Amino acid sequence: MSNPTAAMLVIGDEILSGRTRDANMYHLAGQLTRRGIDLREVRVISDRHEQIVAAVNDLRAGYDHVFTSGGIGPTHDDITADAVAAAFGVGLDVREDARAILAAHYERTGLELNAARLRMARIPDGAALIDNPVSSAPGFSLGNVHVMAGVPAVFQAMVAAVLPALAGGDALYSQSLTIQRGEGEIAADLGKLAQAHPELSIGCYPFQRDGAFGANVVIRGSDAAAVDAAMLRLSEIFPEVSG
Amino acid sequence: MSNPTAAMLVIGDEILSGRTRDANMYHLAGQLTRRGIDLREVRVISDRHEQIVAAVNDLRAGYDHVFTSGGIGPTHDDITADAVAAAFGVGLDVREDARAILAAHYERTGLELNAARLRMARIPDGAALIDNPVSSAPGFSLGNVHVMAGVPAVFQAMVAAVLPALAGGDALYSQSLTIQRGEGEIAADLGKLAQAHPELSIGCYPFQRDGAFGANVVIRGSDAAAVDAAMLRLSEIFPEVSG
Repeated sequence: MSNPTAAMLVIGDEILSGRTRDANMYHLAGQLTRRGIDLREVRVISDRHEQIVAAVNDLRAGYDHVFTSGGIGPTHDDITADAVAAAFGVGLDVREDARAILAAHYERTGLELNAARLRMARIPDGAALIDNPVSSAPGFSLGNVHVMAGVPAVFQAMVAAVLPALAGGDALYSQSLTIQRGEGEIAADLGKLAQAHPELSIGCYPFQRDGAFGANVVIRGSDAAAVDAAMLRLSEIFPEVSG
Repeated sequence: MSNPTAAMLVIGDEILSGRTRDANMYHLAGQLTRRGIDLREVRVISDRHEQIVAAVNDLRAGYDHVFTSGGIGPTHDDITADAVAAAFGVGLDVREDARAILAAHYERTGLELNAARLRMARIPDGAALIDNPVSSAPGFSLGNVHVMAGVPAVFQAMVAAVLPALAGGDALYSQSLTIQRGEGEIAADLGKLAQAHPELSIGCYPFQRDGAFGANVVIRGSDAAAVDAAMLRLSEIFPEVSG
């Protein structure tokens, strides 16, 4: 019943300035839920060394896994690898296996493995590389911290490479019901249902559509029979259902 | 040169489970940037009392303003007002002005102001109400913490109600340039430009389009002339520009 826990750390000024809409949080959240790993917290912070070090240390102490996104490219504002090495108090240098991956990639594409690109082969001591089938430059796992790229296509490929190796938990089973009444109309009954089923998570998510209020009720739990029973009870209380 | 700082706290299991894609962070980030308030951190946490209390206290001590989103509706999983009151160590009760707003709204719409809906009139002692022109139930500001709804239309209306009253800073001026080369190709020159302009923030955001790599370079600062000068230098270094 107690699944592994996780936190995500999104690193990038461009998210906080409103320039870029983050897409990685939504992707990771769905993937972890499917694997039975509970994402408990996400933090979005800017490209500042001290802030990254503090957040990495805070989160890795509090959760089974930490997934980071962003800041591992070749430019001056890519400082995540340095900050993660500092957080763990280990060294950081160009590593031969990472350099070989980059060298092969740039030879294939006819580009030069210059000093900037070589920065992407700098790996903290003791880390394991994360495969990058999209653009070669690897991510890495150090302890329980998995460091991945911010570009969504690369991030997603790295998540796919990392997740199978992690112990999963009980996948959550969920059912949802759309009720065409305002939350305030159904709240009392929902509250009673939640009290009767402390083993389930019962969430109520209001919406407004064509001027009318409604709510999506989502019941989640690792025991499918309990979820089904609670959902049956809900549909008896609110027989006029759509969706 | 030193703008007010802010953090955002997104409260809701539905974001962390991957069920809902958050839209409020992107909206708030853009609005704050326009107003010259630096959004430094965003945290997404679940509907757990202790976690909300701890995050509110952590963030309100670290930033000039904290904006929260979610958890102020009428159902059992709406616990943000209780948690914020607990974080400040103040009482929470139905307040007459908030009750009057709800009573007028439900009289207008022909619905009953039942016990569940009355929960939305529970306001921490000493808070100021935030107007909700969409669905009436108010948010509130307590100290430097601004508590708003999670439904995007309501969140946006509350942000519009709150921001004009807050002291703004120097709006950031920004220019961007799309360069059709991989980051690794331009990183050395960009790094030199960043070193020559410590007063500016120079970000490089890679993309892959139709199989080719490119980068958007964004230069930001409060001094428009400095931004323009750096951008002119950048376009001299990389004359083959698109976008």
